[in-house]
Amino acid sequence: MDLRLTTITLGVDDIGRAGAFYEQGLGLKPSTLCGGDVRFYQCGAAVLALYPRGGLLEDATLPSSRRAPSGSFDGVTLACNCASRAEVDELLARAGAAGGRIAKPAADTFWGGYSGYFEDPEGHLWEVAWGPMFTFDERGGLVLPPVK
Amino acid sequence: MDLRLTTITLGVDDIGRAGAFYEQGLGLKPSTLCGGDVRFYQCGAAVLALYPRGGLLEDATLPSSRRAPSGSFDGVTLACNCASRAEVDELLARAGAAGGRIAKPAADTFWGGYSGYFEDPEGHLWEVAWGPMFTFDERGGLVLPPVK
Repeated sequence: MDLRLTTITLGVDDIGRAGAFYEQGLGLKPSTLCGGDVRFYQCGAAVLALYPRGGLLEDATLPSSRRAPSGSFDGVTLACNCASRAEVDELLARAGAAGGRIAKPAADTFWGGYSGYFEDPEGHLWEVAWGPMFTFDERGGLVLPPVK
Repeated sequence: MDLRLTTITLGVDDIGRAGAFYEQGLGLKPSTLCGGDVRFYQCGAAVLALYPRGGLLEDATLPSSRRAPSGSFDGVTLACNCASRAEVDELLARAGAAGGRIAKPAADTFWGGYSGYFEDPEGHLWEVAWGPMFTFDERGGLVLPPVK
């Protein structure tokens, strides 16, 4: 089988704060799989999960010395591709009102789209973007143009 | 609109090496949107992208001082949820053969599943997991049980 990306788990220091941001703030619904220190959300066609940062290291048997310093950029950007510029504006405003930090207000991009960024309360970076080349499936998953 | 997770971009130091790992190694097909220093792959119902680490910071207007030290764990775990234990074994073996590091060989988990981990050549962590509670849509996207 080929690789499929199905779930993205964000390491968090304060799962109560992070859960409130994504649930009350951004409208995600907790799955019945939630429990203890783990939370799962259907987030379009992908699954978003929250789990303590240290627990992610332990589960993968990585030494704690590998942990990145608090507040550093984690090298992964998540994106919500939107169906219109208005959706970009709406979602960024919602993230800001929910306690996210608007890292970059939405603006036209060099590739012909419109995009901005927010950081969640744990410092994970989200791009919110519209572009004329984006199409979606019925669950909201992004469908790329055919391969070369 | 509610948040949807559509694209995950991995910051990379060597886009040639990372692209070879995901394409020749793990079977992903480059999209026609690829070009320059960016690569996009349909990866099940989600989109996986590769982009230079420094470029991710610049695009979001984050200062370079926020960049995590090389080799540190980035606080995000990606997952490929599989339809069987055999698929887990097969995908981990394929990742190892392609130059990934098997961080944790597959084993039974406390939650009733079967899972292991690999790191891609850039240090991004993937869990490969089977569980009896996982169901999928026709594009391979994970479908969570209904919300509470």
